Amino acid sequence: MIGSNPAIWKVNPSIRGVVAELLSSANPGNPVISLGPGDPAAYPHLFSKGREAFTEAVASAVSSRLYDSYPPPFGLPSARRATAAYLRGVVKSCGNSREHPVQLRESDVFLTVGATQALQAVLTILASAGGNILLPRPGFPLYESSCELAGLDRRYYDLLPARNWEADPTQIRYVADARTLAIVVINPNNPTGAVFSSHHLLQIAEIARDFSIPIIADEVYGGMVFGGGRFVPMASFAHLAPIITIGSLSKRWMVPGWRFGWLAICDRHGTLQGVRKATEILMNLNPGPASVIQAAVPSILSDANAEFHENVLAVLEPCMNTLFEGLKKIKALRCHSRPKGSMFMMVEVDTTLLHGIESDMDFAKQLMKEESVLVLPGSIFGMKNWIRLFFGLPADLSIDACDRMNSFCERRMIRDGW
Amino acid sequence: MIGSNPAIWKVNPSIRGVVAELLSSANPGNPVISLGPGDPAAYPHLFSKGREAFTEAVASAVSSRLYDSYPPPFGLPSARRATAAYLRGVVKSCGNSREHPVQLRESDVFLTVGATQALQAVLTILASAGGNILLPRPGFPLYESSCELAGLDRRYYDLLPARNWEADPTQIRYVADARTLAIVVINPNNPTGAVFSSHHLLQIAEIARDFSIPIIADEVYGGMVFGGGRFVPMASFAHLAPIITIGSLSKRWMVPGWRFGWLAICDRHGTLQGVRKATEILMNLNPGPASVIQAAVPSILSDANAEFHENVLAVLEPCMNTLFEGLKKIKALRCHSRPKGSMFMMVEVDTTLLHGIESDMDFAKQLMKEESVLVLPGSIFGMKNWIRLFFGLPADLSIDACDRMNSFCERRMIRDGW
Ligand SMILES: Cc1ncc(COP(=O)(O)O)c(C=O)c1O
Ligand SMILES: Cc1ncc(COP(=O)(O)O)c(C=O)c1O
Repeated sequence: MIGSNPAIWKVNPSIRGVVAELLSSANPGNPVISLGPGDPAAYPHLFSKGREAFTEAVASAVSSRLYDSYPPPFGLPSARRATAAYLRGVVKSCGNSREHPVQLRESDVFLTVGATQALQAVLTILASAGGNILLPRPGFPLYESSCELAGLDRRYYDLLPARNWEADPTQIRYVADARTLAIVVINPNNPTGAVFSSHHLLQIAEIARDFSIPIIADEVYGGMVFGGGRFVPMASFAHLAPIITIGSLSKRWMVPGWRFGWLAICDRHGTLQGVRKATEILMNLNPGPASVIQAAVPSILSDANAEFHENVLAVLEPCMNTLFEGLKKIKALRCHSRPKGSMFMMVEVDTTLLHGIESDMDFAKQLMKEESVLVLPGSIFGMKNWIRLFFGLPADLSIDACDRMNSFCERRMIRDGW
Repeated sequence: MIGSNPAIWKVNPSIRGVVAELLSSANPGNPVISLGPGDPAAYPHLFSKGREAFTEAVASAVSSRLYDSYPPPFGLPSARRATAAYLRGVVKSCGNSREHPVQLRESDVFLTVGATQALQAVLTILASAGGNILLPRPGFPLYESSCELAGLDRRYYDLLPARNWEADPTQIRYVADARTLAIVVINPNNPTGAVFSSHHLLQIAEIARDFSIPIIADEVYGGMVFGGGRFVPMASFAHLAPIITIGSLSKRWMVPGWRFGWLAICDRHGTLQGVRKATEILMNLNPGPASVIQAAVPSILSDANAEFHENVLAVLEPCMNTLFEGLKKIKALRCHSRPKGSMFMMVEVDTTLLHGIESDMDFAKQLMKEESVLVLPGSIFGMKNWIRLFFGLPADLSIDACDRMNSFCERRMIRDGW
């Protein structure tokens, strides 16, 4: 038997791996309702007018045959420029930037194979022996596994259900140490559905400033905020600490299969010059996103699509509400706060009320077997006895899923007298 | 100043980095003739009938909107099946497989972001502390840098100009040791233009068998062979040693911008079961190629395109001959053997004949400055005082490039009496 990299074997189960395992025990007679992965392209009810324009932009880039060559290592200049302009626009429109206008140029932007490659790259770039990264808990498992592969330790700060999933700044300061290399902030948040206030982001930026470290701002759900809430990009605080922003077309533009993302370095005080050079070296080696997708990006990111985005949110928010209301009726589940954005929420499972359910993994497995409902166990996000739910299903499916979860829980309810 | 991964700083200059540096010293008044990177999509004279079909297959996958979702982690089943069938077909058609038919199925194939991601993945998967990889010299620099990032040592076996760039099996056995994890074989070869005989490949497979290690068979130029020569895929020898084959659409299909490649595990004796499982774990984390490209792969890899491939070779071979003949006339350059395949050749520079040229880097830099001809210094491939040339230019440009190189050399010729 030929050996392989021991670091790979230490990696936690990936979302994809757990989904595959859960689906393998589905009852073939009962079609699965998935509250698992967040793939907006799988839900036609979310598609609103305007999405055709993205398709047409890519189809025409393909047909032009002008983009069959290797793209330049950091991306097509037009696409890097458009991404920089888009990110500047987001900072501007949040209204926080009057005093400290953001400076993001073409050369600050590196185009990546989804946000996935961006976050893997940034962790590889920052890695150094004995260094650690501050991650949110619950978090996104890919940070965990990418740190493992890059040889980075992890420290955790908790997102607190009782505080609308914001963190306690005192705890962040407490867990950070001299070997902390960066703080990861995911906003709008997967898996909790939180959207952090400007004040909270400022608190985190001040911590990064005090520790002289950058913030990795995962804004893959940037702009996906409900009810007139406000998305404040972390780069609004670039005057306090250097910000490395990560994003992609996967969620807000609903084309995750196109595998297009970005990494943008916002380095007001020039402390990331080494990091930038290392990014250039690494991105000279890494394969980038398909050039035919890159060519379409200026059109995809253009302001002309504002209505499309509004329409998506106008459909997504009622879907979320339907699921939230349905869940509230299930005794063994506890929804602490209504999601304010992204596509996910965390729900607590009171296993003490449920016969034969010892853990979130038990819950997810048996729910799949008996009711063909896919939910993700919270433990893969770092929170035992919670589950993560995708809330973008059509209302009728959400209601059906809640009914099934309710039957499942009712059957196992531990009642007085047992 | 915030620190970054020291391994990144140890990486050798990438081809992309060196090209950018050389081009920055070009004389803007004199258009550059590039014998540098091998981007077939940049050369319309190479396009033959049939290439439209690839474009149409992708454009129709885009327009169908059926492929906007995340692709499955290892790739679309249809594309994995088509790649497996393609690779089986190549082994079969080389005629070596009668006794040992190759068994490659959908589950053996992992789809990647170009061959680049495939080779990075395979080196990450095999990495273990103190382990080393046997690389050819001259070689492809991405192996060098990917080993550095994966923490792998390198050992080198020489490709010998006097043996038509085949290696000496005795030397391979001599440099391999108990910590050798795999042998990399690039065939058809970049940078030398060699195409290894079936006998030579058998010799290497026997070495891998004797050391109980897999062969990483980089067949990115698979099928690109001239003059009725024969391309024998390494998987023909899978009965002797496990073979991990790497390939992509970048060269033979001339669409490097689409970033589509593959990694195929041919493991007759089951010794790569751990490696396969590790590959699954890693590919569950890594982003894959764009789904709209994957969807087109069954049509792109189909046998229906045989004529397209023949036509490309029918254009490429005379281009190569023109360059080869032109180079022979330049006194300070020595072409040891005519390329038998791929898109590159190595040419020796006799610096002792040239005034003010101490190295291949001097040669490349001054040639760019004075004559606007881009060649790559052999030292980045591991061979000092050689240069690598892309031989796919249109004949008139090749002749022009040779004239310029000749003028350049003539001006610096060290003559009797100096
Ligand atoms: C928080 C977060 N970061 C990064 C990613 C990866 O994004 P992409 O699909 O663009 O690679 C995701 C995808 O689900 C995510 O939820
Ligand atoms: C020998 C060799 N291997 C791998 C690659 C990378 O292939 P791709 O461009 O498909 O990523 C190349 C590209 O030039 C190559 O020459």
